[in-house]
Amino acid sequence: MQGFIHNDTVFKESILMRAIVPFKRERAKSRLSPVLSGEERSGFAHAMLRDVLCALSGSGIRIDILTTSVSGAMQVNAKNVVVCELGLNDALNQYLDSMVAHSEIEPVIILMADLPLATEEHISEICSRDSDVVIVPGKRGGTNVLFLKDPSRFRVDYYGTSFLDHMRIAKDAGMSIEVFDSYMLSTDIDEPGDLIEVLIHGKGEAAGYLRNLGFEVCADNDRVELRRRGNG
Amino acid sequence: MQGFIHNDTVFKESILMRAIVPFKRERAKSRLSPVLSGEERSGFAHAMLRDVLCALSGSGIRIDILTTSVSGAMQVNAKNVVVCELGLNDALNQYLDSMVAHSEIEPVIILMADLPLATEEHISEICSRDSDVVIVPGKRGGTNVLFLKDPSRFRVDYYGTSFLDHMRIAKDAGMSIEVFDSYMLSTDIDEPGDLIEVLIHGKGEAAGYLRNLGFEVCADNDRVELRRRGNG
Repeated sequence: MQGFIHNDTVFKESILMRAIVPFKRERAKSRLSPVLSGEERSGFAHAMLRDVLCALSGSGIRIDILTTSVSGAMQVNAKNVVVCELGLNDALNQYLDSMVAHSEIEPVIILMADLPLATEEHISEICSRDSDVVIVPGKRGGTNVLFLKDPSRFRVDYYGTSFLDHMRIAKDAGMSIEVFDSYMLSTDIDEPGDLIEVLIHGKGEAAGYLRNLGFEVCADNDRVELRRRGNG
Repeated sequence: MQGFIHNDTVFKESILMRAIVPFKRERAKSRLSPVLSGEERSGFAHAMLRDVLCALSGSGIRIDILTTSVSGAMQVNAKNVVVCELGLNDALNQYLDSMVAHSEIEPVIILMADLPLATEEHISEICSRDSDVVIVPGKRGGTNVLFLKDPSRFRVDYYGTSFLDHMRIAKDAGMSIEVFDSYMLSTDIDEPGDLIEVLIHGKGEAAGYLRNLGFEVCADNDRVELRRRGNG
């Protein structure tokens, strides 16, 4: 795949579709800096990534982690790690182009790496839909999951109101679209308040990571707040 | 029903279940005051209520609006309006008690009135679940929809982390529980940023109300913001 470096194990099972998980390693989750140190943010980002990989692993499909740097250890079990130093949109579109160039046109599911409430059932339900494109909206017009039956007909356009942009791109290409309505998948973790959702609904590594750091949810009257034990 | 005043039409259709929609009229949606005037907040709250009633109306079930005051016109078509000056939990539990006292034990769905993204399909799906209790979580541990197959066995406990409280109440009562995973139903509208969700995903009266006031969603680079035309 031109412009990419592959490392780790390349899975050899018969591939009917594949998953791409973009994962930002540098300055990962910087908006969590009011409550997590740099090392903790990195640890937490990897824990969330492992939750996402766990949700995907049940499907038996090939999983490619798309990341921007080879430096530092990836704290995940052997997966295909694809390194591309482009921005998110260019990296993903180059990835999709290279699939087409290699005549590897198969359905693709693109999941963000900060969706620790994702489950196997979500993935299975999304991938079994009939529509050409399935979109899981995130907060404020974001796109958290994108399923493309034929990636050769689609260009991604993340950032801003990407949900609306992706709906329009699919419509312009004459592709059928379905919005997948899930609170758990809409919950991407960016800000300290989002950690409350992980603690309340999470059952995976990210929730365990936060609990081990002493985080808990406190409800005083109508205020629900994040608190860290032993941290003032 | 002791302690309650009924007005408007009492529906006579055969009742297999009923819906309760608590609706706060005084100081409704006060956290939207940075972007909406008092009159606009009231108008918007009624528009959201009408969206919720529209989602419920397809099911053909009896709908009771539970509200705290008889003053001021209710800007909705004739429905059962139940007035109770107690707080939310006491009012709902008194309502459930009075059902039991009148041997009117039938399934109940309690929907908050600030869920303008609710649809008929949501209601139909929730009410067709097999579990004794179906809970739709809101943000930060809230409960946005509660379906009780047998309301005589359940006491509501809203505010704080009511999602966790309701899960525990159902478990303690030996009732089977299901979490209904929906972004659209998790989106209760409290703060200015929430209006973005209404504008992006809404198809009902609340979205129309905001658009008529000149609200729109603007995406500048990665920032997605609410803007009001002609308002500086």
